[in-house]
Amino acid sequence: MDRSALIQQIKAKRSFLCVGLDTDINKLPEHLRDHEDPVYEFNRQIIEATADLCVAYKPNIAFYESAGAAGWRSLQKTWAAIPKECLSIADAKRGDIGNTSKMYAQAFFDEQMSGLSFDAVTVAPYMGSDSVRPFLGFEGKWVIILALTSNAGGLDFQTIRDTDGTQLFERVIQTANTWGNTDNIMYVVGATRGEAFATVRKHAPDHFLLVPGVGAQGGSLSEVCHYGMNADCGLLVNATRSIIYASGGSDFADRARDEALALQQAMEQELTSREII
Amino acid sequence: MDRSALIQQIKAKRSFLCVGLDTDINKLPEHLRDHEDPVYEFNRQIIEATADLCVAYKPNIAFYESAGAAGWRSLQKTWAAIPKECLSIADAKRGDIGNTSKMYAQAFFDEQMSGLSFDAVTVAPYMGSDSVRPFLGFEGKWVIILALTSNAGGLDFQTIRDTDGTQLFERVIQTANTWGNTDNIMYVVGATRGEAFATVRKHAPDHFLLVPGVGAQGGSLSEVCHYGMNADCGLLVNATRSIIYASGGSDFADRARDEALALQQAMEQELTSREII
Repeated sequence: MDRSALIQQIKAKRSFLCVGLDTDINKLPEHLRDHEDPVYEFNRQIIEATADLCVAYKPNIAFYESAGAAGWRSLQKTWAAIPKECLSIADAKRGDIGNTSKMYAQAFFDEQMSGLSFDAVTVAPYMGSDSVRPFLGFEGKWVIILALTSNAGGLDFQTIRDTDGTQLFERVIQTANTWGNTDNIMYVVGATRGEAFATVRKHAPDHFLLVPGVGAQGGSLSEVCHYGMNADCGLLVNATRSIIYASGGSDFADRARDEALALQQAMEQELTSREII
Repeated sequence: MDRSALIQQIKAKRSFLCVGLDTDINKLPEHLRDHEDPVYEFNRQIIEATADLCVAYKPNIAFYESAGAAGWRSLQKTWAAIPKECLSIADAKRGDIGNTSKMYAQAFFDEQMSGLSFDAVTVAPYMGSDSVRPFLGFEGKWVIILALTSNAGGLDFQTIRDTDGTQLFERVIQTANTWGNTDNIMYVVGATRGEAFATVRKHAPDHFLLVPGVGAQGGSLSEVCHYGMNADCGLLVNATRSIIYASGGSDFADRARDEALALQQAMEQELTSREII
């Protein structure tokens, strides 16, 4: 999905919500556990209940990989169940030397090889240019680079200042900007980082940002929009636990829809007040 | 496998060789391609031909993941074929926020969950403490943290100096030293980084280092030993392409053994000259 299709979808759905599919087999409602593939069935119902309210889905690969080959099959079916008008993001945080990163890119982008063809994949920048560029070699796909993450440990290294006073996450953005463009690169910036969005926007005014950390992690949607929104919206705000685990009972999909709807309505207000829609 | 068992094995085999199993289905000898699981069969024969010459095997997960669920099954069989006296390393370079990193740890360490129980896994440090600590919660397992990698892009961020003049990879080592100890943490330092080993040893005199980049990537074994070896050896030097692709024909396993033997002999000399054996 290209940038203009993404922006169009945001305007049509009046939403920039991404729903995280970090589906933990131990947290599934009781009544699904006897299903042939409970993880997939849970995801299928979540997707059905929320697809008109969000513009992206983001399975975190760890939750599938932890179940080995069976988990990989659940992931494949989940990917296939994501409606084509929604951006599908493999939250994988991969990165390796060049020839190996190409293999990871094939794992998530090349359906013939792996059975998967996500629109986007998250990558870790620590290993530098040749660890990221192979992902950028896939026409029409997005690479979403970790910049400033939402977790506590995100501050261990990402905000270290170099001799010029530039923080590591700023250097990552400055450098990665030279590897691609606003049509194939996004950055991960945690919703818990409030004012840092202003710094991110200095270096990446036009890029889309993938923003986890709203909801269970405590990030504020209005603060993210205040500091981070641009004229095209430029944000994909992810919520996971607050949506998919809104209820642990048989009403899980309905309750997930309620939570997604509340976020969509708040997002509509942000878009309207900035005259983006 | 604990530290003393690893050191014992190094002394017994007179080797600190790690064989990388980055098995690319497109590079397999013709005669294996009709095999039911060519990747596994290739690995099985490589392992059989080299097990007395090396102390560790390191499949890079990208090469398996790129084949989806089928690749995951090849990985599982490969892991099971690694002799128990050898350290098995999942080269995965994972890292995510806490609850998610725990899932990745289960993917590689918890056989009941995933069918895999590697002795060690490589992790990326960019997301900080809570992305690494969950891996350290598994008794008897090793976490191998990327410090200074062998690839060209390794210099994009890892050698940035902070206001104290400390390079990022040094900060990573200093900080990660507080998360664990020499019994459960190793660091990745590329063989192409020669003199930087002296800097690494200032911060981690006693840790084991996993050293990729000898062989096809051009790193020098004698330089690595000169700057990096400690009284316990303290090195696992990995070679991949120079061993597993020594021949593309039906003699691939014999030729792999020749290459592994040459490295083992050079390593024996390094160990002998320092009176470690």
